[in-house]
Amino acid sequence: MQQRILTSELAAHVGQRVQLKGWLHKLRAHGEVNFLVLRDRKGLAQAVMSPQELEPLHGILAESIIEISGLVVAESQAPSGYELHEVEVTVINAVTEPTPLELNKKHIKSSLPTFLTHAVIGHRHVYHRAVLKVSAGVMQAFRAILTEQDFTEVQTPKLVGSATEGGAEVYAVEHFGQMAYLAQSPQFYKQIMVGIFERVFEVGPVFRAEKHATTRHTNEYVSLDVEFGFIENHFTVMEMVTKVVGGILRHLQACYADELGLLEVVMPSAVVDEQTRAFPYINFREAQQLVTERYGVTDAIGAPDLTPEHERLLGQWAKETYGSDFLFVVGYPMVKRPFYTHPNPSDPTVSNSFDLLFRGTELITGGQRLHQYVDYLAAAERFGYDPEKFTSYFEAFKYGMPPHGGFAIGLERFVMQLIQLDNIRWASLFPRDIHRLTP
Amino acid sequence: MQQRILTSELAAHVGQRVQLKGWLHKLRAHGEVNFLVLRDRKGLAQAVMSPQELEPLHGILAESIIEISGLVVAESQAPSGYELHEVEVTVINAVTEPTPLELNKKHIKSSLPTFLTHAVIGHRHVYHRAVLKVSAGVMQAFRAILTEQDFTEVQTPKLVGSATEGGAEVYAVEHFGQMAYLAQSPQFYKQIMVGIFERVFEVGPVFRAEKHATTRHTNEYVSLDVEFGFIENHFTVMEMVTKVVGGILRHLQACYADELGLLEVVMPSAVVDEQTRAFPYINFREAQQLVTERYGVTDAIGAPDLTPEHERLLGQWAKETYGSDFLFVVGYPMVKRPFYTHPNPSDPTVSNSFDLLFRGTELITGGQRLHQYVDYLAAAERFGYDPEKFTSYFEAFKYGMPPHGGFAIGLERFVMQLIQLDNIRWASLFPRDIHRLTP
Repeated sequence: MQQRILTSELAAHVGQRVQLKGWLHKLRAHGEVNFLVLRDRKGLAQAVMSPQELEPLHGILAESIIEISGLVVAESQAPSGYELHEVEVTVINAVTEPTPLELNKKHIKSSLPTFLTHAVIGHRHVYHRAVLKVSAGVMQAFRAILTEQDFTEVQTPKLVGSATEGGAEVYAVEHFGQMAYLAQSPQFYKQIMVGIFERVFEVGPVFRAEKHATTRHTNEYVSLDVEFGFIENHFTVMEMVTKVVGGILRHLQACYADELGLLEVVMPSAVVDEQTRAFPYINFREAQQLVTERYGVTDAIGAPDLTPEHERLLGQWAKETYGSDFLFVVGYPMVKRPFYTHPNPSDPTVSNSFDLLFRGTELITGGQRLHQYVDYLAAAERFGYDPEKFTSYFEAFKYGMPPHGGFAIGLERFVMQLIQLDNIRWASLFPRDIHRLTP
Repeated sequence: MQQRILTSELAAHVGQRVQLKGWLHKLRAHGEVNFLVLRDRKGLAQAVMSPQELEPLHGILAESIIEISGLVVAESQAPSGYELHEVEVTVINAVTEPTPLELNKKHIKSSLPTFLTHAVIGHRHVYHRAVLKVSAGVMQAFRAILTEQDFTEVQTPKLVGSATEGGAEVYAVEHFGQMAYLAQSPQFYKQIMVGIFERVFEVGPVFRAEKHATTRHTNEYVSLDVEFGFIENHFTVMEMVTKVVGGILRHLQACYADELGLLEVVMPSAVVDEQTRAFPYINFREAQQLVTERYGVTDAIGAPDLTPEHERLLGQWAKETYGSDFLFVVGYPMVKRPFYTHPNPSDPTVSNSFDLLFRGTELITGGQRLHQYVDYLAAAERFGYDPEKFTSYFEAFKYGMPPHGGFAIGLERFVMQLIQLDNIRWASLFPRDIHRLTP
């Protein structure tokens, strides 16, 4: 029996008969000379066929599963430089209705809602498949870099007894008569795990019952979480962010060049400051002054946070000033940060936290956390939280925690901004939002 | 400023002064000569201290975060072969109450419920930490082996519009006025993804609202899922299972030898049959005959499934007959298998599916799936399912799917059986069951 080879392996088999298996990507019937394109997990391959050779495909449509065998011929006109001649084709699983999306054109022309409804099929398109492949590459690189830095992987519970970050944006689940919730982030757990492994990471789903439907949010996404101990302050965390993001970009360039090419990705410039060993940074207050003075913005000074427009302008400034697509904003006011945030020891109204802007959009939030038990008790009181609800979480601090911090990257957000897609849903496998629970 | 080193790096610094940071693991005060043991992410290190040197630790209890600096001396009596002399100690974060579990004895003596209540602290114990470290190693190996085999990682939604496998054991979630569910498995999605990548894997949480509290089940666990196309039948899948399980065991031996040693793991024998390139197998009917004839069991013949006792005896038999801790049982009756199961073409009452027994307990279920659209429509009708509920899932088959199959490994189950723990909760980070939602 002939062994199947992949479309990427044709070059090594010129002059030999080979067998390919895959999807009937396209058939261009011209009469005497016909072109069949087969798609497998690696790419496309063309076969030149006579009318007789085409006969088994009578009544068979695109996306049918087929097996073809033929002679490999080098042909500069063929898409991959090689094609099959003297072809025999067998149908393994026939498709008899036209697909709801056209998979064999350069781009799917459908609107986003139509694409999402048929995403089960739509992701087969080589462009969309490449987006998901890049996502896989990001996860792979994230883990490899952190494993190299002596981090341990954890998988923390998603069904939790109380809401992590507070607020109404939490999914409730009935658990045998008790109320449970879906974890909005692994924040508490990853901090707890610093007590065990010092350095941990997690790749997993998080759930946000947010009603708003923006182009940058979905209700479930994949969060790449990092937390580690024995840090100096948030600058230690920013250094790690830079190592991780830079490492991901290098990994993609090394291992996903084909996908990046197909997606026409303009790789971001990741400038690292020698002093901080991190991407360039600006202080929150200075950032507000800068957008006011340089860009004439009137709503920045005195505001407790930056608006998306401020972020966009800061991104522009960072590109002009440092040539960098990444910019940290540090020292956000404590009032806008969650209760576990560590204040700046020399100004307790300012936090030891940061956002990382990527091309002028927030990509990562992180910082130093409180590590003293008494500080947690005080913070709970200040926020009006019932410390009873946090018994297990606080136990970690009661029994010894080092100074620590961390950050989280939204996988789909990162991919969206890397590829410069106009909606995060193009970078999500099967996105969930207020309108959509399927596929 | 002195750079922190890890306890594992002492050997390289004999005769030098170094700095260690970590947890105050143990203090044995004997008067003139006192022993302090510090724990960091790598292990333990001992310091020999005078009463004067101990002074900063006055009133300070185990698990305090400390920094010590001292001179590294080779000392065969010390636990690691090295110890620190001329020590200076600084307290970074003081613990002032005794821990609820004793972390510095060889084993934690508490009962399982007490351990679970304080698992936030309990997992710091070097034994329990090693269990979680082995879990991390299993995930790492699983991904590496499959990536090497050209599989692509996917992260599929956990909030789903309809229950995957049917049954009452599903968590319901309110999603903006609609009913959503927590995925009981990524089954449908991983099959759909075969249409995109041919070969996929996923590591992620699954949710089972099962009321029963057994030693082998929890309500949320980590599932290691695999699915791939262009298979011959379930034997192709069994070959992949064998590759993955064998590869995980080899990876653990190569990279987690310290943890395996500490946990006193008896490595299983993984015998591979030359013909099938898989672990030994037995047919379901033959298995029933065997336990009846060889072990005098009376409830096997004619039953639609094997009982845990039958599985235990089969495990014993496989060990005696093949010297193997792994045994496949193939050809379960179709009646006990889910609707997407592919029948044996020569006997449609029997499925092309398998269970893998590990030390006589079911570890993995897998098999070949239906791949023809018409077969799904027929199966839905036979099971009385509304095909409207499966529109997206069935779309994958309507538009071309190759013969495919896959399997799933429960991470905690695997670790439990590898280490031979008596309850899966010892192998779970923070287990969820009918009685437990925290930590």
